[in-house]
Amino acid sequence: MSEQLTLHTAKICPFAHRVELALAEAKAGYTRFEIDLSNKPEWYAPKVNPASKVLRTSSRPFAYGGPQTSPELPTPESVKIAESLILVEFIADLYPESNILPKDPVQRAHTRFFIDVFSTKVLPVYMGPVARGQSFEPLWEALEALQELLMPGKTYAVSDEFTAADIAITPFLARLEVCIKNDIGAYKAGEGIKAAAEFFEGERFKRLREYYEAIKSRESFKATCDENYLKEKYASRFAPIREQLPAAAAQA
Amino acid sequence: MSEQLTLHTAKICPFAHRVELALAEAKAGYTRFEIDLSNKPEWYAPKVNPASKVLRTSSRPFAYGGPQTSPELPTPESVKIAESLILVEFIADLYPESNILPKDPVQRAHTRFFIDVFSTKVLPVYMGPVARGQSFEPLWEALEALQELLMPGKTYAVSDEFTAADIAITPFLARLEVCIKNDIGAYKAGEGIKAAAEFFEGERFKRLREYYEAIKSRESFKATCDENYLKEKYASRFAPIREQLPAAAAQA
Repeated sequence: MSEQLTLHTAKICPFAHRVELALAEAKAGYTRFEIDLSNKPEWYAPKVNPASKVLRTSSRPFAYGGPQTSPELPTPESVKIAESLILVEFIADLYPESNILPKDPVQRAHTRFFIDVFSTKVLPVYMGPVARGQSFEPLWEALEALQELLMPGKTYAVSDEFTAADIAITPFLARLEVCIKNDIGAYKAGEGIKAAAEFFEGERFKRLREYYEAIKSRESFKATCDENYLKEKYASRFAPIREQLPAAAAQA
Repeated sequence: MSEQLTLHTAKICPFAHRVELALAEAKAGYTRFEIDLSNKPEWYAPKVNPASKVLRTSSRPFAYGGPQTSPELPTPESVKIAESLILVEFIADLYPESNILPKDPVQRAHTRFFIDVFSTKVLPVYMGPVARGQSFEPLWEALEALQELLMPGKTYAVSDEFTAADIAITPFLARLEVCIKNDIGAYKAGEGIKAAAEFFEGERFKRLREYYEAIKSRESFKATCDENYLKEKYASRFAPIREQLPAAAAQA
């Protein structure tokens, strides 16, 4: 049993989505407060995310413990904890029966190694194609490296149990799918559809795709991912960029 | 009780030093094999660090389990685990009584946050001054941010217990000290001494310095850090660079 948990979050954010997935897997009770990241409330920065040289301004810490107050009136009595992967491990520690971190030390190490490869190989090239119209190839190569790490014959990344490794990657694959299948992104019209064919058809990503389907069928995913919302948000974010692309290219 | 552990390591390497500190704190029995990083044995890459798209070529994984063989004859029956921080958490998992990770979930989160700030703020600017002759100021600013995170009134980073947070930073502070106190680095003669004064005298790093002294007085540090060896190695590494600096500058 844990103390009160308040999560200031944003449906659009893949990092915050990790934390919500972990909370759903742990069946943890918590207070959820949606923050409009483009128009943050005045109380947010000083009270939830206190000025600090060390916190990224984008981080959305968790308030743990202290009295249960309105999410709009955060109290200094709660501990603020930041960084999505740290929060996922925190939830795993609060709810060990969730198996978010496997009990076996070797499997725990494999879980952390999978996350490390995702963080150091995939994340640095993740935004390139959709947000900046760069080639998809560096992202595909990074995802191939990750695919190689999937434990053979297992449903999830490191075992037949759903772990922090799966939580770390799921929100990013989900957002990539929404964008490319709907041809949303800072690229020429049609590039998303081609990318969707690369990922969702053929042999190259067969294993990663099977894995992704397994993740998507979890209740925790269905309860925390609003694909229509993501589609609308990303479409309106990238529409102005698409309009600025050279007309010939945009119609190519 | 754990299975056999074989560590292929290198005294010069701060990442490998983290793992040796954790093993010393856990009082773990292990086989230590020194690798000459500038002249790696032929069997090393294929057998200890198997070709993989995902491992950095510099990583020195740990061999865990399987039969106890000579370190020069690694067996495929052992599990190879890579990345220093993952190895530190692995050792913490194998030896929970070592308290390398605190039992309290909030303290565990603080431990991981301290490490995250070290990894994302300090490490990217760590090599600049000593290895490339760049300004020390970005490193000082990053260390100030880290200093702010030291838990007030506690001996170590997050509590009065020595944890993974302390393990993560110690090898880097130790190597910085050896270089600047001995004026070793890719900078003009005298710049190291000035940097040593900045760090080891005055108010700016008073708290971090006290903390560093506490870390250095641990048996685990004394047993794993050979300062004379570091001094010789770094001196011979940086001497040719120093000679190539403009003569006027080098004498300034």
